[in-house]
Amino acid sequence: MLLTQLRSAQFACGTGGGCSTEGGCGTKKKSLTRYNDKHTELMEPMPTVLAKPTLRNTKVREAYSEEFNRTPHCAGSTKVNDYSRDIPLMSIQEAVREASRCLKCNDAPCQQGCSTTIDIKSFIYNIQNKNWYGAAKVILSDNPLGLTCGQLCPISELCARNCNVSHTEQGAIKINRLQELAVRIFKEMGVPQIRDPSLPKVLPPSYKKPIAIIGAGPAGLSCATFLGRMGYENVHIFEKSQHGGGIVSHEIPQNRAPIEEALWEVEMVKQLGVQIHYGKQLGKDFTLTELREQGFESVFLGIGLQQPKMGKDDPVLQPSIKQAVNAPNFYNSKDFLTTVYKSVKFEGRPQEAPRLKGHVMVLGIGDTALDCARTAFRQGAERVSVVFRRGFQDIRANDEIFDPARWEGINYIPYSAPIQYKLDASGKVTAVEFDKNLPKNTDPKNLKYNKTNQKYEMPVDFVIQSFGCQLPEEDWVQKIKKTDNLVDVDYETGRTRAYDWLFVGGDAIGTKNLVDAVNDGKTASWFMHKQIQESNGFSVPTTPKLPGFHTAIDQVDISTTICGVKMQNPFGLASAPPTTSYPMIRRAFESGYDFAVVKTFCLDKDAVTNVSPRIYKVAGDPLKLEPSFGNIELITEKTAEYWVEGAKDIKKDFPEKVLIGSLMCGFKKEDWQELTRYANTAPFDMYELNLSCPHGMNEKGMGRACGEDPEVLGQITRWVREVTDKPLIIKITPNYGYAETLAQAALDNGAQAVTLTNTMPGLQDPLPSGEPLVGVGLKERQYAPGGTTGSVLRPFSLRKCSDVAKMVPGIEIFGSGGIISGDHAMSYIQYGAKALQICSAVQNLDAATVYYDLETSLKANIYCLGKQELYEKGWRGQFPPFGFQKLGTKFDTEGKVVTKGITELVASKLKHISPLEKMNRQEFLAPVINEDKCLQCGRCYLACADSGYQAIKFDGYNTFPKIVEADCTGCAICHAVCPVQDAIFMLPRTEVYEINRGTTPGPNYPQEHIIRVEPLSKEKHRI
Amino acid sequence: MLLTQLRSAQFACGTGGGCSTEGGCGTKKKSLTRYNDKHTELMEPMPTVLAKPTLRNTKVREAYSEEFNRTPHCAGSTKVNDYSRDIPLMSIQEAVREASRCLKCNDAPCQQGCSTTIDIKSFIYNIQNKNWYGAAKVILSDNPLGLTCGQLCPISELCARNCNVSHTEQGAIKINRLQELAVRIFKEMGVPQIRDPSLPKVLPPSYKKPIAIIGAGPAGLSCATFLGRMGYENVHIFEKSQHGGGIVSHEIPQNRAPIEEALWEVEMVKQLGVQIHYGKQLGKDFTLTELREQGFESVFLGIGLQQPKMGKDDPVLQPSIKQAVNAPNFYNSKDFLTTVYKSVKFEGRPQEAPRLKGHVMVLGIGDTALDCARTAFRQGAERVSVVFRRGFQDIRANDEIFDPARWEGINYIPYSAPIQYKLDASGKVTAVEFDKNLPKNTDPKNLKYNKTNQKYEMPVDFVIQSFGCQLPEEDWVQKIKKTDNLVDVDYETGRTRAYDWLFVGGDAIGTKNLVDAVNDGKTASWFMHKQIQESNGFSVPTTPKLPGFHTAIDQVDISTTICGVKMQNPFGLASAPPTTSYPMIRRAFESGYDFAVVKTFCLDKDAVTNVSPRIYKVAGDPLKLEPSFGNIELITEKTAEYWVEGAKDIKKDFPEKVLIGSLMCGFKKEDWQELTRYANTAPFDMYELNLSCPHGMNEKGMGRACGEDPEVLGQITRWVREVTDKPLIIKITPNYGYAETLAQAALDNGAQAVTLTNTMPGLQDPLPSGEPLVGVGLKERQYAPGGTTGSVLRPFSLRKCSDVAKMVPGIEIFGSGGIISGDHAMSYIQYGAKALQICSAVQNLDAATVYYDLETSLKANIYCLGKQELYEKGWRGQFPPFGFQKLGTKFDTEGKVVTKGITELVASKLKHISPLEKMNRQEFLAPVINEDKCLQCGRCYLACADSGYQAIKFDGYNTFPKIVEADCTGCAICHAVCPVQDAIFMLPRTEVYEINRGTTPGPNYPQEHIIRVEPLSKEKHRI
Repeated sequence: MLLTQLRSAQFACGTGGGCSTEGGCGTKKKSLTRYNDKHTELMEPMPTVLAKPTLRNTKVREAYSEEFNRTPHCAGSTKVNDYSRDIPLMSIQEAVREASRCLKCNDAPCQQGCSTTIDIKSFIYNIQNKNWYGAAKVILSDNPLGLTCGQLCPISELCARNCNVSHTEQGAIKINRLQELAVRIFKEMGVPQIRDPSLPKVLPPSYKKPIAIIGAGPAGLSCATFLGRMGYENVHIFEKSQHGGGIVSHEIPQNRAPIEEALWEVEMVKQLGVQIHYGKQLGKDFTLTELREQGFESVFLGIGLQQPKMGKDDPVLQPSIKQAVNAPNFYNSKDFLTTVYKSVKFEGRPQEAPRLKGHVMVLGIGDTALDCARTAFRQGAERVSVVFRRGFQDIRANDEIFDPARWEGINYIPYSAPIQYKLDASGKVTAVEFDKNLPKNTDPKNLKYNKTNQKYEMPVDFVIQSFGCQLPEEDWVQKIKKTDNLVDVDYETGRTRAYDWLFVGGDAIGTKNLVDAVNDGKTASWFMHKQIQESNGFSVPTTPKLPGFHTAIDQVDISTTICGVKMQNPFGLASAPPTTSYPMIRRAFESGYDFAVVKTFCLDKDAVTNVSPRIYKVAGDPLKLEPSFGNIELITEKTAEYWVEGAKDIKKDFPEKVLIGSLMCGFKKEDWQELTRYANTAPFDMYELNLSCPHGMNEKGMGRACGEDPEVLGQITRWVREVTDKPLIIKITPNYGYAETLAQAALDNGAQAVTLTNTMPGLQDPLPSGEPLVGVGLKERQYAPGGTTGSVLRPFSLRKCSDVAKMVPGIEIFGSGGIISGDHAMSYIQYGAKALQICSAVQNLDAATVYYDLETSLKANIYCLGKQELYEKGWRGQFPPFGFQKLGTKFDTEGKVVTKGITELVASKLKHISPLEKMNRQEFLAPVINEDKCLQCGRCYLACADSGYQAIKFDGYNTFPKIVEADCTGCAICHAVCPVQDAIFMLPRTEVYEINRGTTPGPNYPQEHIIRVEPLSKEKHRI
Repeated sequence: MLLTQLRSAQFACGTGGGCSTEGGCGTKKKSLTRYNDKHTELMEPMPTVLAKPTLRNTKVREAYSEEFNRTPHCAGSTKVNDYSRDIPLMSIQEAVREASRCLKCNDAPCQQGCSTTIDIKSFIYNIQNKNWYGAAKVILSDNPLGLTCGQLCPISELCARNCNVSHTEQGAIKINRLQELAVRIFKEMGVPQIRDPSLPKVLPPSYKKPIAIIGAGPAGLSCATFLGRMGYENVHIFEKSQHGGGIVSHEIPQNRAPIEEALWEVEMVKQLGVQIHYGKQLGKDFTLTELREQGFESVFLGIGLQQPKMGKDDPVLQPSIKQAVNAPNFYNSKDFLTTVYKSVKFEGRPQEAPRLKGHVMVLGIGDTALDCARTAFRQGAERVSVVFRRGFQDIRANDEIFDPARWEGINYIPYSAPIQYKLDASGKVTAVEFDKNLPKNTDPKNLKYNKTNQKYEMPVDFVIQSFGCQLPEEDWVQKIKKTDNLVDVDYETGRTRAYDWLFVGGDAIGTKNLVDAVNDGKTASWFMHKQIQESNGFSVPTTPKLPGFHTAIDQVDISTTICGVKMQNPFGLASAPPTTSYPMIRRAFESGYDFAVVKTFCLDKDAVTNVSPRIYKVAGDPLKLEPSFGNIELITEKTAEYWVEGAKDIKKDFPEKVLIGSLMCGFKKEDWQELTRYANTAPFDMYELNLSCPHGMNEKGMGRACGEDPEVLGQITRWVREVTDKPLIIKITPNYGYAETLAQAALDNGAQAVTLTNTMPGLQDPLPSGEPLVGVGLKERQYAPGGTTGSVLRPFSLRKCSDVAKMVPGIEIFGSGGIISGDHAMSYIQYGAKALQICSAVQNLDAATVYYDLETSLKANIYCLGKQELYEKGWRGQFPPFGFQKLGTKFDTEGKVVTKGITELVASKLKHISPLEKMNRQEFLAPVINEDKCLQCGRCYLACADSGYQAIKFDGYNTFPKIVEADCTGCAICHAVCPVQDAIFMLPRTEVYEINRGTTPGPNYPQEHIIRVEPLSKEKHRI
C-alpha cells in the first residue's frame, strides 16, 4: 500500500494540512484561554452528560436514520458485471475474535462433520494465536483444496451443524471463513508444497508406475495430491479444458470463489511432481483402453457430470425443449455459467457472455439454478424468477446459497411445473407455460406432487433451464454406470464395480458437495496405492496412513543449547500443574516438548497439603479469552521419593529428553544439601532451584522468601553447587524490582541459568460482594494473593528477560511467563531466552494442541523473517503486512535471521529496547487516517480529546477524523485505541514541531528543552 | 436452582458415584504403575499428535456427521403448541463479547437510527462492564418499553442499519439482544421506578389536571410514563381489554415476545402513579366529549388499528369474502392471533384457539401475515402457504420476520391475486382461486402489476386473511381522520388537526414500528405538557426536556471522605494523560468526577521532552478488548507556572471539586521545598508526591528511583511536610515487593495517604521480528520497558491495596490500577481504598461515558448488596446469580452493606483474604457438572488431564464429563477453564478425601500431613 497516497488523500479532504496556524504560545494567560476555547470548539460532539432523554419525532427520526444509513440495501440490478466477492472477507481481528469464541472441544464434533476430517479445533486454535502456517498445514494436510472448500462448503450441513455452540445465541463458529482466511494468508507467503522428507526417499519401482487421473477437478486434484505425497512419481492428470480446477474454475460464479485461488491449488498439486495434460478429453482424445495399453496401472475418474439434462424424463415438456434449445434467449445452466465465466475471467476470448435484460426466468431450484439467477442479475436482468416444481419445505438449498439470492431480490415461485416454452415466429422464447403442481398429501416429511391441469404462463425475456447434469451418453460410460445414470462404485474404496483398476469420485457417483468430491479423491488415492502395491507384490497396512502437508517451513531447525545441553526444540513444561505427575510429563514428551521441570519437591518434613479450591481465572475475564490464571497451589504433594524413583523410569523411556528436578528448602544449608544429594540419585539432567514460589511457602521461609535478597539467593546457590556438578537454574521471583541483580548473584555463585520468571503475587477480581468467585472454606470463602500467571504476567516477565539479557550477559535464560503463542516465543528468544517454559497455555487447553501451535508458529516466524522478499513486502515473521508502522521497510540485514537455527536469534533484537533518555527526540510522528479502512467511529478523536492533545477533529457525520498536526505531539494514543487494524498509521510529521509548554518558558528554561523540529522530508521515509 | 438436583442428575448418569474405588496408595512401584495405567485409560480421546491426515470415506463421513449433529433442523410441524421463545437469549458471556465488539463510536450513528434516540453506545459500554442497571437506565430513560422493543424491533431497518461495523464480516452489533438482556436482568432486580426526586417536588395545580390516555398499548404507555415523570399526578389510561400492553400482549405470538415482560412494563408505568382503567372502550363505554366534560384537559389516543380490513377495496374478491367470513375454516388475522393468544396465555378462558390441520393458507405478506403463518404451524398445520400479490423484490418483511418463517418451511407464493374463495355445500372454504398477477413493467424500483386472467385455485383446509387493519367505522373517527383512513395529525407534535386538546400516535397515524409508536407517545407527552401548562398560563421552554428513568438506586449516597476532605463520589482522574491540561480536567469535573490529580510537574530545570510515539496497547491484544496500555510518556511538558496559574482559574469555577497537585523532584531537599512552596501559591487541596514514575525519570534519580527505598521515601515526605500543611499522598511504585513497608514509611513521616499504585515497568509484545508495533526513531524503532496500566495491572495493584489496608491501618488509600468498571471500584473499596483514581478507562474511551458507568454501577452494586432478598436469591451486588459458588447463600449480616453510604464499605471485605497457612484444610470441594448448561466441549477434561489429576472422564460422544471424586483434589482448574458460565459448580465432596502422595509416606512423614477428610453432610451446604 502506498502510504503517500494516504497522506494525500487526507489533504484532499481539506483540513488536514493548513488549519490552526494562529499558534504560538503567547502569554501565559492567553495560552490558558486558548485551551479553553479549543475545549468548546473541539469537544462539541462528545458526550458530556448521559442518559437524559432526547425528544425527536418519528418523521425526524426517519430522516436522521436515512442520513446515517451505513448499509445501502442490496439491489440486484445494480450488480451488473460486479463479480467481486460478495461475502466480506474476515479481517485478522475478526478471525481472532471468532477463533476465540470456539470452545476447542476435546471431541471436536465439527471434525466429525467435515468430509475430509480436518482437525478443525486445532486450526482454529492456531488462528487464535495468529499462527497462519500452523492452521494452513492442518487444513491442507487433510484437504488439499482447503481454500476453495473454505469458500464454498455449505457448512450449515457439514462441520458447523455439529458445532457445540450452535445452540447459543451467536450460533456455530464460522469455520469456513476462518479456514479460508488462514489458507489465503499462507498462500501469500508463497511457500511451495514438498513431499515430507522424513518419508522414505528410496521407494520400490512400483512407485514409478504410471497413474492416470482424468479431470483436474476437486476429486482428481485431491487424488493426485495424496498419491504425490505418498511418493508416486508418475502421476498424470488429463484435463479436457485449458486449466485445472474443475467446476470451481469453470462454472461457479466469481463472486463466490475467485479463480486465482483455485488455480493456486492446482499449482500446489504440480509442486509434488504431478503432471497435468490440458486439452485431453476422455472419449475424444484418448480412451480408457488406450490408457491401459500405455501401462497406466491405475486410473481415477474425476470427470464430474458434464452434460446438461435436457428434460428427457419429462415427456410433456420435452417436445418444446427441442424447439427452445435453438432460441437465442434460451440457455441451459451449464452453457450459461461457463460462457459468462469465460467472458468475465478471460476477456478477449471469442465467447461473448450473454447480455441479459428484462425478466429472466430460471427453471430449477438447485445450487446451480441459484448461481444462474444471481449471475443473471449481474448480466443485466432487471427481474429474476426462480421457478420450481416443489414447495419450500422440500428445497435443499441451504442458507449459504439461498440467502444471498434472496437479498438480491430474486423471486422464488414454487409449485410450478413447466409444460411448454412458447416461441414467437422468430423462434424466440416469449413465455413459459406452467401447470400448477400441488402437493397431493400433507405429510410434511414426504410430500408428493400432482399437476392439477391449471395452466398459466409467464412472459420471459430470457430463460435458463437448470435441470441438473448427467454423464455423457458414450459407449465407455455405458459399461460402468448404474441404472440411476451414475457410475457404479464401491463407496468404501472408490473402486468401480466394472474394473478393479478403475476408481472414481465426485459428481459422477452422486457426491453432494465439493468437499465430498475432495474426500472421494483422497479415499481412492489410498486404495489405488493399495491396488498398485499389492499387484506389485508389496503389502500395505490395513489402517490407512496418508502423508500430510509439508513445506520448507517444517524443515526449519529450532534446536537450542542451554546449560551445555542440546534440545531439539526450546519448549518444555514449567514446574507447575502441568507437571503434577510423571504420566503427564510422559504425555508432554510424546507430544513434542523437549524438556520438563518437575513440580517442585522438598524434604518430607516440609510436606504440604493444598487447600481447595485453588486455581482461578485472572482478572475475572468473563470471556476467558486469555490464558491467565491466579493460583494458590503449593509445591507438589507427592513425596521426594516419587520424584526420584519416577525420574529413573521416565528417563529410561525418554533418554533424549531433558528432565529437570525442581528443589525447594528453607534457608538451611543441611536441608538443601540433603535434598540435592537425594536428587542426585536420580538421572535429572539439571536442577532448578525454586526461590520464587509466590505464596504459601514464603510464609514458611521458603520460595520467594529465599529469592528476594541477592545475598540469600547467592548463598543457597553456593550450598547446592557444593554437592552437585549438574547445571543449576535459579527460578527468579518478579516480586523484586531488579531481576538483573538476582541473576548476577546466581551467576556469581555458580548457577548457569535463570528462569524469568515465576508467577507474581496478585489478587483476582472478587465478586462485587468482595467474595472470591470460588473460595476456601464453606463459611469463610477465602483466598489469598496468589501466583498470577499467563498473559497478564507477560509484559513484566518479558521486561525482566530483556533486562537480564542486557545487563548480565554471562547467564543463560529460560523464558517463562505468558508464552502462549509462537509470537511470544519469538519475543522471549530475541530478547534473550534460550529455552522456554510453558504452563498457562497448557492449563488452558492441552499439551499437544499447544505444542503443535508453538512449534509450527516458531518455525514459520523464523522462516518468513529470513526471506528478504517477504520482509520487504512488509511481513514480520508470519505476521502479514498489517497493523504496524511500515516506515522504511528494508530487510534487516544486520539482525538478519537465518533459517538454519535459532541460536543466532537469541538476544538479537535487544537493540530495539533502549533507555528512554537515549531515544531519538528529533523525529516526531503524527497519525494519518487510512480512509480505506477507517470505520469513522471517532474513537481516536475521543481518546485524543480526553487523554491527549485535542489534535483530532471529527464532525461526527460520515466524515473521517482530521489530524491537526500543529497540536499533535505524536503520543500515539489514537493508534493504540483505534479498533480497526491499519486504519491509523503513525508517519513522520509534515509540519514543524514545537512543544507547547502551557506558558512561555522563562529565560532560565533549559535550552535543550526549547525544541523546534523541522519536518522530515515528505517522501523519504514512507513506503 | 437446586444444586442437589445437579448432583443427583450426575449420579443418574451412572459413573459419577462409584467408579475407581480400588484406590489406596499401595507401594511406590504400584503407585507409579497405576498412574501409567490411568494415563492410557483416561487420555484416550485426547489429542496427542496433530495434523496427520485421516481417511474416512464419504458415506462414513455422512454417518458420523449425522451422529454428531447438534442442531436438529427446525421442522415447523413439530412445533405444535410450542410458544417458547424461539430466538435464543443471549447469555451474559455472549452479551459481554458482543458489547466488546461494539466500537462505541463517538457520533453513534446507531442512536440516530433509533426512533426513541436511545444512547445505544453508552448502554453497550455498560453491558460490557456488566453494569446492568446503568444500561437499563439509559434504555428506559428514552424508551419506557425498552424490553419489548428489544424483543421486537426490526433493527435491520433501525439502529443496526446505521452501525459502523455493518460492513465487516461479522455484521452490525446485535443491539436488540443486548438491550433485551440488560432490561431483563434489571427487571429481575425488582426495583420500582420513581420520579426523579431532584425535580421540583411542589408543582403548580396545573400538574393536577386530569389527563386521559386511551389505550394501554405502546404509544399510550410511553405517553403516560413521560407525563408521570414530569410530575402529572392525574393521568388516567382507559383500556378496553382486561390488561395492558396493546398489540404485544394481545396479538404478537408468545414465541416472539412473552407477555410477562410486556406486563412488567405496564407495572412500571403504574409505579409513577398513573391509573389504568380496564374494560373501558372508547365509543362504547365513554366518548371523547364525555372526557372533556369530565375535565380532562388533554387526551391522547393510542388506540391502534383494531378493525381488520375485509377487502373492501377489492371489488373482485369482496363478494366471496362476504361468504367466507361465515365459514368455520376462515379467519382474519386479527381474530386468529387474538384467539390463539388468549388460549395459550389464559388457559381456561371460554375462547378455544383454532386447532388447524392440513394445508393452511395465509393471504398477505405483512409482518402480521407471517405471524399468522408461524402460529398456524404451532396450531397444527402440516403445510402453510403465504400467498401474496407482489414479487419478492417488493416485499417489506425484514430479515427478523422473514427468516424464522422460512426456517420453519413456510411456502411463499408470489404473483398471486386472490379472486375468489370457493365454498362447499356446508359453507366451508375448500379452495382459493387466484389470478396470476404479473409485473407489467421491469423497473425494479417501481414495479406495477396486472392481473393476467390466468386462473388457478389451490385447495385449503384453513385460510387466514391478513389484509391489514383500519380505524373502526364509527362517528367519532370520521371527525378526525384523513382520506387515507388514518387520523389526521401534525407529525411534529402528535396533535390532531381536529382538536387542539387531542393527541394521537401509533398505528392510528400509520406509524410503522412498535418503537415508533413509543416515540409518538413520548413526542405527544411533551406537547400535551406544553398545551396544559400554556393554557394554564405557564410558559414552557422551547427546547424539550424530558425527565429520565429514576429509581432508588440513583439515590444511593456514594460520598466519601479522605484526608479529611469530603467528596461527592470516590472517582477522580489519576495524574496521567487524562489530566494533560486544565480544559481536560474541566471537562472531567463537568462529567462528574469529584477530584483530579494534575499531571506531575517539576521545577523548570528538570523540564522534559517526550519522544514520539509513546503509548501502546499492552500485550498485543489483537481485539483491543481490555483497556490496558503501556506508555513511555514522561511527566508534564508544561511549566510549573501553567499548573499553578491554571489551578487558580479552575478552582474559581469548581470550588467544591478537589484539585490535587502532583509534584516531582530529585532526591534534593531544596528542590522539593522550592517546588512545594511555589505550589503553595495555588489553591491545590492536596499534594500527591510522585515517587513512582516507572520510566525515564528514574534514570535521572527521580520517580521510582526515590520510591523504592522506604528511607528515601520517608525523607522526601518529611521535607515536603516541613513546608506545607496540606494533606500529602505518596504515589507508590509496584516495582517494590512490599507496598506495606513503603506505606508505613509514608505514614511515619507525615503523609496521610498513599496511591496504590503507579504503573509497573513492562514491555508490550513486539512484532515477531522483535520490533515494537510502533517505535521511536525512523531507523532505530525503539521502545523501553514502560508504565504498564489498566486491566493487566489490576491483580497486582489490588493485592497491594489489600496488603496495605491489612498491615498499615493508619494510612488512607487512593486505589488506582485497572479500575475500569464499578465492580472494580467495589473491589478496591472493600479491600481498603477510600477514593479511586481512573486513567486507562478514560484513555480507552472518554471521561463522561466512563464516569456514568462507574457511578451507576457502584450505586447499583451497593444497593443490591444491601437487599437481603436479592442476596439470598444469589445476587452479588448487581451481579445476577450466575457463575460463582453458591454455597450457603445467607445474607451476610456481619459485613452487611447499607445503602446510606460507602464509608462503611471501606476495607469491609478484607476478611476474605487470608494467609494461605491459615486457610481451611478440612473442607474440600469437587466439581459438579450442570448438565443444563454444559455444552459437552470437554475442556474441563483436557485441563484436568494435562494440568490436574486425571479425575474427569469424557468419552467424547455427546456425553457429559464424569467426575471421579476419588482422584479429584478440588483444585478447580476445571472451573477456571470451563467456557460456559454455570456449567461447573464447586461443591462439597461426597466421598472421603485422601491425599495421594505418589509413594507411601515413610514413618517419619509429618502426621499433620497424613490427611483423611470425611465428606461433609450431603445436604447441609447446598442451596
